[in-house]
Amino acid sequence: MHAARYVGNHTIAVAEVPVAPPPPGQVQLDVAYTGICGTDLHLLHGAMDARVTLPAVIGHEMSGRIAAVGEGVAGWAVGDPVTVMPLAWCGACPACAAGHQHICQNLDFIGIDSPGSLQNRWNVPQEVLVRLPGSLPLDRAALVEPVAVSVHDVRRADLRPGEKAVVVGGGPIGVLIAVAARHAGAEVVVAEVDPERRAMVAGLGFDVLDPGADDLVARVTEWTAGAGADVVFEVSGAAAAVLGATSLARVRGRLVIVAIHPQPRPVDLKQVFWRELTVLGARVYERRDFETAVTMLADGVVPADRLITGTVPLTRVADAFDQLSAGQAMKVLVDCQEVA
Amino acid sequence: MHAARYVGNHTIAVAEVPVAPPPPGQVQLDVAYTGICGTDLHLLHGAMDARVTLPAVIGHEMSGRIAAVGEGVAGWAVGDPVTVMPLAWCGACPACAAGHQHICQNLDFIGIDSPGSLQNRWNVPQEVLVRLPGSLPLDRAALVEPVAVSVHDVRRADLRPGEKAVVVGGGPIGVLIAVAARHAGAEVVVAEVDPERRAMVAGLGFDVLDPGADDLVARVTEWTAGAGADVVFEVSGAAAAVLGATSLARVRGRLVIVAIHPQPRPVDLKQVFWRELTVLGARVYERRDFETAVTMLADGVVPADRLITGTVPLTRVADAFDQLSAGQAMKVLVDCQEVA
Repeated sequence: MHAARYVGNHTIAVAEVPVAPPPPGQVQLDVAYTGICGTDLHLLHGAMDARVTLPAVIGHEMSGRIAAVGEGVAGWAVGDPVTVMPLAWCGACPACAAGHQHICQNLDFIGIDSPGSLQNRWNVPQEVLVRLPGSLPLDRAALVEPVAVSVHDVRRADLRPGEKAVVVGGGPIGVLIAVAARHAGAEVVVAEVDPERRAMVAGLGFDVLDPGADDLVARVTEWTAGAGADVVFEVSGAAAAVLGATSLARVRGRLVIVAIHPQPRPVDLKQVFWRELTVLGARVYERRDFETAVTMLADGVVPADRLITGTVPLTRVADAFDQLSAGQAMKVLVDCQEVA
Repeated sequence: MHAARYVGNHTIAVAEVPVAPPPPGQVQLDVAYTGICGTDLHLLHGAMDARVTLPAVIGHEMSGRIAAVGEGVAGWAVGDPVTVMPLAWCGACPACAAGHQHICQNLDFIGIDSPGSLQNRWNVPQEVLVRLPGSLPLDRAALVEPVAVSVHDVRRADLRPGEKAVVVGGGPIGVLIAVAARHAGAEVVVAEVDPERRAMVAGLGFDVLDPGADDLVARVTEWTAGAGADVVFEVSGAAAAVLGATSLARVRGRLVIVAIHPQPRPVDLKQVFWRELTVLGARVYERRDFETAVTMLADGVVPADRLITGTVPLTRVADAFDQLSAGQAMKVLVDCQEVA
């Protein structure tokens, strides 16, 4: 079979590798589609070399069907459509003991710390399987993981119906947060610097602001009748956005840090103090977020067709990364069965 | 009568001023003691000139007795011992409408935005009065306001019995937070750079760490068996403390921003994200915090005698500021009846 492997030096290469049968407690999946995300791109660019073991099969946004069932696996059958929640926790650290397994202190993020889904067949423990409805096309189902991220972010914000939310950053995760926030009953405005992304977001029915031209504080203050937004999601990763975000939130408002900021960022702590803001970190997801994401995709809440901007065969996986690097693509899928 | 007034140019001067009778709805207080805090010092140093109207009678940590009762005042009698919760809110802004009157968007902080207690007699609206038990000496009662700050901070942290808290900064508010956190059932460690303050804090029965010599992360990790602290209170105002604080908190831990940071501070948002931390601003207090503070002082929970490091007559108010500037004093009181 074929597997796409990060081999270091900004390079991902497809190799022919042997198929191993699923060990006890695991299933073998026919991987249908794998989506490429910003983290995969950072990884390809060498930013996570300390975490990965070369050659590394990456990929963690996927859909597929069960191809074989290992010894001791119960409740799953060949042909079942599934996705994978790519987290394996230790069960023994203080975070796990406190019930926060999804951010276990020794978390194995499958697809980074251990082999991922950019291959024809993939063995995974039965614990990570999430069932898909037969009605959900498998290309759309490859979006379950990023949708689960957005569901988790919105849940972490404790967003209530009728509240007003600003999403700063209109990339794939920003758009999905806007969708999940709207689905939760909130009114949503998205701030995004790129004009093409703004047009795409506007096409999904969201009000958009341009941080380069609009006075965000003035616009949000007007929109909220002087109060400020109930929730601000920081999804841009930009230092300027972090500095400004605290001025968009109302007294006792919440600011959710979704983007990964590799460097410490200046934060207006006087504003955090003055308005008694709550700044929340939100990372990955829990199983209920995955299950909500499956339902949202199956119910057509997520505009999957608008978000999937391209599909390439496994053997052209490097093209998917190139499209993402160019900054225009929203979500590029890799067809893991097609070997062109 | 005499009033101490900030007249600009780093100067506070005592002047003879006329006594005005209390208007309807107000009472006139014989001010017993007024404590001087860091905010008063900043004000004297000119940092709040845009907010104050010169000459400004400042002071907001006080105790006293009712000397006269204005028309329409009910439930208060001459001689009653009282303190003042120095907040006047508009009642009409979005923050007030949402129940957050204590951080009203148009808050009048009495003693900064309107005249304060550094005078023999002081007229205040009946709404701000907080009753004191007759058993509580009035010098100790001048600590109610800063104790209420610490009670609010601990309540905002939702600190639970058995939790472990790190207080970064062992000045007056830091010590009071440590006391309030211990009273709430938490185990407390205080980190403080100044050796005299460390000795004072240790004398109150707290474990102390020296950020200049101790590896705080290693010490807190060891203390918490690898988990990290449940709550970290940032009371130092130092940029380095903010940058390090996120590494002291456990997964899903809380970091409470108590100090006022006039400049944006670099914050390790990757750590906020990675551990799903909650960063909370905490400002002033609500009435229940004041009432809890009165009880804590009346019950002897607060080591008031150790915290009050000096008392000066009103006419020597400048000495109180000098003692505070020198950085050695914890809490200096001004005897507002004594005119030496």
